[in-house]
Amino acid sequence: MLIRLGYDIQFEIDAPVTIVAMLKVHPSRRHDLQEPDSMQVEPAVAATEYADLFGNICTRFVAPAGRLRLSSSAVITDSGEPDAVNPDAAELPVAELPSETLRFLLPSRFCEVDLLSNTAVELFGGIPRGWPRVQAICDWVHDKVTFSYPQARQTRTALDVYTERVGVCRDFQHLAITYCRALNIPARYVTGYLGDIGIPPVQCPMDFSAWFEAFLDGRWWTFDARHDIPRIGRVLIATGLDATDVAITTSFGCARLAHFTVTTDEVVLEGATGRTRT
Amino acid sequence: MLIRLGYDIQFEIDAPVTIVAMLKVHPSRRHDLQEPDSMQVEPAVAATEYADLFGNICTRFVAPAGRLRLSSSAVITDSGEPDAVNPDAAELPVAELPSETLRFLLPSRFCEVDLLSNTAVELFGGIPRGWPRVQAICDWVHDKVTFSYPQARQTRTALDVYTERVGVCRDFQHLAITYCRALNIPARYVTGYLGDIGIPPVQCPMDFSAWFEAFLDGRWWTFDARHDIPRIGRVLIATGLDATDVAITTSFGCARLAHFTVTTDEVVLEGATGRTRT
Amino acid sequence: MLIRLGYDIQFEIDAPVTIVAMLKVHPSRRHDLQEPDSMQVEPAVAATEYADLFGNICTRFVAPAGRLRLSSSAVITDSGEPDAVNPDAAELPVAELPSETLRFLLPSRFCEVDLLSNTAVELFGGIPRGWPRVQAICDWVHDKVTFSYPQARQTRTALDVYTERVGVCRDFQHLAITYCRALNIPARYVTGYLGDIGIPPVQCPMDFSAWFEAFLDGRWWTFDARHDIPRIGRVLIATGLDATDVAITTSFGCARLAHFTVTTDEVVLEGATGRTRT
Amino acid sequence: MLIRLGYDIQFEIDAPVTIVAMLKVHPSRRHDLQEPDSMQVEPAVAATEYADLFGNICTRFVAPAGRLRLSSSAVITDSGEPDAVNPDAAELPVAELPSETLRFLLPSRFCEVDLLSNTAVELFGGIPRGWPRVQAICDWVHDKVTFSYPQARQTRTALDVYTERVGVCRDFQHLAITYCRALNIPARYVTGYLGDIGIPPVQCPMDFSAWFEAFLDGRWWTFDARHDIPRIGRVLIATGLDATDVAITTSFGCARLAHFTVTTDEVVLEGATGRTRT
Repeated sequence: MLIRLGYDIQFEIDAPVTIVAMLKVHPSRRHDLQEPDSMQVEPAVAATEYADLFGNICTRFVAPAGRLRLSSSAVITDSGEPDAVNPDAAELPVAELPSETLRFLLPSRFCEVDLLSNTAVELFGGIPRGWPRVQAICDWVHDKVTFSYPQARQTRTALDVYTERVGVCRDFQHLAITYCRALNIPARYVTGYLGDIGIPPVQCPMDFSAWFEAFLDGRWWTFDARHDIPRIGRVLIATGLDATDVAITTSFGCARLAHFTVTTDEVVLEGATGRTRT
Repeated sequence: MLIRLGYDIQFEIDAPVTIVAMLKVHPSRRHDLQEPDSMQVEPAVAATEYADLFGNICTRFVAPAGRLRLSSSAVITDSGEPDAVNPDAAELPVAELPSETLRFLLPSRFCEVDLLSNTAVELFGGIPRGWPRVQAICDWVHDKVTFSYPQARQTRTALDVYTERVGVCRDFQHLAITYCRALNIPARYVTGYLGDIGIPPVQCPMDFSAWFEAFLDGRWWTFDARHDIPRIGRVLIATGLDATDVAITTSFGCARLAHFTVTTDEVVLEGATGRTRT
Repeated sequence: MLIRLGYDIQFEIDAPVTIVAMLKVHPSRRHDLQEPDSMQVEPAVAATEYADLFGNICTRFVAPAGRLRLSSSAVITDSGEPDAVNPDAAELPVAELPSETLRFLLPSRFCEVDLLSNTAVELFGGIPRGWPRVQAICDWVHDKVTFSYPQARQTRTALDVYTERVGVCRDFQHLAITYCRALNIPARYVTGYLGDIGIPPVQCPMDFSAWFEAFLDGRWWTFDARHDIPRIGRVLIATGLDATDVAITTSFGCARLAHFTVTTDEVVLEGATGRTRT
Repeated sequence: MLIRLGYDIQFEIDAPVTIVAMLKVHPSRRHDLQEPDSMQVEPAVAATEYADLFGNICTRFVAPAGRLRLSSSAVITDSGEPDAVNPDAAELPVAELPSETLRFLLPSRFCEVDLLSNTAVELFGGIPRGWPRVQAICDWVHDKVTFSYPQARQTRTALDVYTERVGVCRDFQHLAITYCRALNIPARYVTGYLGDIGIPPVQCPMDFSAWFEAFLDGRWWTFDARHDIPRIGRVLIATGLDATDVAITTSFGCARLAHFTVTTDEVVLEGATGRTRT
């Protein structure tokens, strides 16, 4: 399957400001791109790329005053398969976890593992370890938390999600990640592209999406406490401890969002049968 | 100056547990060691070393049930100079900051930059940028927060320190770090050895100490909101976003601390004049 | 001046639910009513009235399943004078405060006096005591907090307002009340009618309003950190420690708000000159 | 049974300060006193008594600089019976609750009912209503929270108790009260005398104690999530929404506690058999 990826993000900027964008497809998927997903910056500015602590590709530049536009359009090859499901994937005992996964057991800004560890054990301690336990976490979060764009809040933490039971994508994942870590299952936050491929078209503003990965059986697996069903066509952009690490754009100064569209569409070839998205 | 470093940390352990210790002198100071600071683990266990995300050296092993003892003794060469003071050290505009410092502008578990940014601007926005501003932050935290071992709390965040005005070393640094980051000054948390060299002997339990580093004029500088005076003989062990990243030991299971001593003493040579510590 | 007061509040109710409404004009203003402000409940139910801990009149009934409508229309005589301003009103030392005002110095659900006392002293400790200090508190809150209906949140406390700097009426008052109490000035939360009398018509949904009262010079004075200018035509409904005590309606079970209008209009007599509101 | 009640509380005071003491036996028990429990204040000061919002007797005075001593000794008649246990006590539907109990369903400073309502329903929604449900709440809190004097903290709320699982008397009761209210069971905080009568002598500093009352079957019943067993000889001093309302002493300024003893001993008559406390 081919998926067209793209975005058009525009800011109004009053004074020159440093911006870090995390908008490149993750190195792990770069070989699937049919063409590089180069970011167009208008007006043209000198930009530099670097890999952050977690290996995500960041693009950094100083935006001048005025309207700034970041855009891209690329096509990526995808298996077309839904997220892998493997109920037999086992938890590794901490003693066998790779060292690079250990940080993903600890608290972070939006994931207060220390404050919710008892809750995690009480809710999920009786569920069989491994995949079923992570799935039970996703089910719980999905069932108990109500999705609400109007109630989005940049400062909401996992504990806030636990008490308020409302949130957007990121909030669902933060709570699920926190539960996993509390149970000694490494979990990391993911941001990426996720279109409505293979599901009925969704009448809501397209956005980048958040999900998470849990480390079972020696590898990272995709989970999504927001949707809680396997989905087709996720394209990973960045991973980190939580949303702090993988903001799509971080402005070190004032930049007002003025336009925002994201494209994640299956490319339907002419003559082919199938749904066409326009 | 020569400084003897050492520790003797003992745990009671009921069932085998994975422990990660961050007890090796930081790579940046390793060349100053007269002998490697090897960690003795009793009973002997197979341990592996790895560098974490921030380049700190971690020692990882599975501790068996029973008494566990971690100890070390080493001698390190030190300049004997107090912490450098450079009132002319300027802030770099964000645009000129090295990319690897940018993460140290963002929130972390114990440093809610997002929640204290207005406070930081209100308190310090009028202070000249650069060294004087960081120094004003340290002075404020030192003056407003009361040191209290009995009121230590593992879950206390910078916002808690701001409201409660009480804490231990780590709490002082967390609040100062949060203020720095809110003002676009990269700041990172440090744990290390700090004895009472050059000051009157302190009648309190020796412990590892926490301080922080702020990035000014192209390099990291030592600051310490707890003591707020230049000190002699700091030996860096690890740096990270906050205390989460640089715990001396992290046990992924139950390990009860049973004994804890830390040594950080000037080595006074025979025949030399000067203070002798015994 | 005559002011027409009224409301039309409708709920959808699935199962019988106990509702407590605090919708009667406060006893202190009852003598100004030209006609009693009786609450119409449709469908008719048996309702009882009682005075709560603070002397507010509560109406209590069990609403049946279906649509519930609460409405009222009354006319009240008002001085037409703006809120009294008395820069000479002095603070009473705590020793001279009436005993019944002392509870209004302590924390409550949304006013964490204990957490913001240092901040209050640091911000306002240097302002002359009495009226100027309360006015400085109102000015600060008015200047620093941004009004935003979309970001309203029922669980936002004064500390949250302090860190987030955004809120609706109640949030402004909660923070101001907290500061007053921290400085030993009794302060209580008020809910009531406040129309746009004497000011240009406001293009926003009419609602009940919140303000607060501070105890100076032996009596309670009206302050309003949200608007921060003297206003004409406030009609007090209820006072309490904070918004918890004076919710317009409290449903002990599920009741979905389906319609909400509030009227607070100057009655302009025929033949009179002046603005006519329709 | 006769119980000797008393206290000796001393403060060091730098400058005259208003103090409100809540140290008189509650009006509901006053008729059981063999002699009035008059409070001695040294040095002698003019004190006034008043009843607060909840009917508790408060003593108010201005303490001069120097050492202040509050003391009392009285004897009270007690049934000698342990706390009543009535597993058949039913919950009243909210519609049948007396109006004066309704405020005890709402949040207060230390009882964030709004934040823990889902947790309460998830934990206890399946337990039969009435006495068994309140008992299940007490059992849960008693089992999950660890008592620790050194970790006492004046600002700890019910949510903090829920996440930290540690606390002193007041913390246990705050969490239990919060759960009760979330389940529409009125609950109020109590402070009073509780000695180790009928149980083995306890080797810990005597203090006033906190417990709570839940409203079932038309009356208030004693519950104690800290001890979670019926106890003999409780003597009620004050009730309120939470600890904010019923502090033993509130100083509106600085007063350093210098001495604190509380006596709650069974009076064993000469010639009688039985335990003698000295």
